[in-house]
Amino acid sequence: MKLYDYAAAPNPRRVRIFLAEKNIQIETVQIDLAKLEQKSEAFLKLSPLGEVPLLQLDDGTCISQVHAICRYIEEVYPENPLLGRTPLEKALVESSNHQLNMNGIVAVADGFRNANPAFADRALPGPNAYAQIPALAERGLARVDHLFRDLDAHFANSEFVIGDYFSVADITAFTTIGFARWIKKTIPEDCVNLQRWYDQVNARPSAKA
Amino acid sequence: MKLYDYAAAPNPRRVRIFLAEKNIQIETVQIDLAKLEQKSEAFLKLSPLGEVPLLQLDDGTCISQVHAICRYIEEVYPENPLLGRTPLEKALVESSNHQLNMNGIVAVADGFRNANPAFADRALPGPNAYAQIPALAERGLARVDHLFRDLDAHFANSEFVIGDYFSVADITAFTTIGFARWIKKTIPEDCVNLQRWYDQVNARPSAKA
Repeated sequence: MKLYDYAAAPNPRRVRIFLAEKNIQIETVQIDLAKLEQKSEAFLKLSPLGEVPLLQLDDGTCISQVHAICRYIEEVYPENPLLGRTPLEKALVESSNHQLNMNGIVAVADGFRNANPAFADRALPGPNAYAQIPALAERGLARVDHLFRDLDAHFANSEFVIGDYFSVADITAFTTIGFARWIKKTIPEDCVNLQRWYDQVNARPSAKA
Repeated sequence: MKLYDYAAAPNPRRVRIFLAEKNIQIETVQIDLAKLEQKSEAFLKLSPLGEVPLLQLDDGTCISQVHAICRYIEEVYPENPLLGRTPLEKALVESSNHQLNMNGIVAVADGFRNANPAFADRALPGPNAYAQIPALAERGLARVDHLFRDLDAHFANSEFVIGDYFSVADITAFTTIGFARWIKKTIPEDCVNLQRWYDQVNARPSAKA
């Protein structure tokens, strides 16, 4: 297995933390998104949509999308499960992870890509050109404010996203906090529960991945 | 198990088709979204975010989000698997399903909710008020046009989304086509491959669910 990665970007980081939590070490290849290397002819042969992260299996098969890469890894390396241990827990992890992806990663991306001049006509990832929408950037900022408050309320009564079970949903939330700095959003000082959870996750060795 | 459902809406329909494909019959309770019944005190006790579809287990536990509900059902009723049969297939289904959700269901929802007067200040589902963004409605329409073309090209060489295996990704794409009528988008006449696939899926008994 080989992971096409970009050290600075949030979505590849989600995969790297996932791998680190499962103690899996694999070869990585840097695709410099700042230099648009994901649009190079060579990379588009592997990933027609130019997607990073990308997991390439030993037979050459490629898997795109964070959720799908994590699913494959969990299936092949079931130890230290991060996608749930029972049918109910698997469903609750998937529900929270999906919501955190939408309200966290996607919201920050809206805020970032619709305001940064480097993303003119690249407001959405992928091959199609979409113009920036300033109001969508603003909405992204507002959604992140809501998310911080919602997470703070949640962590008042819960160690992790799903009770005392550390899961991929914590990785998504944790990566969102780092990504939010790109739009100058940091945990509000009075969100002490969210800060407690963040410090706890940040102290795990995987946080350095 | 009990499914809180709304017959007219696309996301509950995805779950109903999923259940029908697996030959599972469960009790359903209609929550009339047009009458904002999802915001009633009684329903918010079950689903604090007012989410439909919602699966309630016999012990009262509730699972929200289409992907999570389907995951639970697949875990508990593994026959006729719709989320993949091997680790690789599970990953490919998840990757395609996620992309179709974003480029299909979410894109149509952007087009619909940001233009329909009934959704003023409800441009996103959930408890927070977000104003409509007309440019986002426009972008939703454009994304659906792209999706039709991309799917047409895909189905030129593939029976279903994932080769000859009917999966949840086909359900997401199929439901998107129906949902797209809400923004007056129908399969373009020259998209004959997409139309062939649509007719084939529409002929399955589950399409009536």
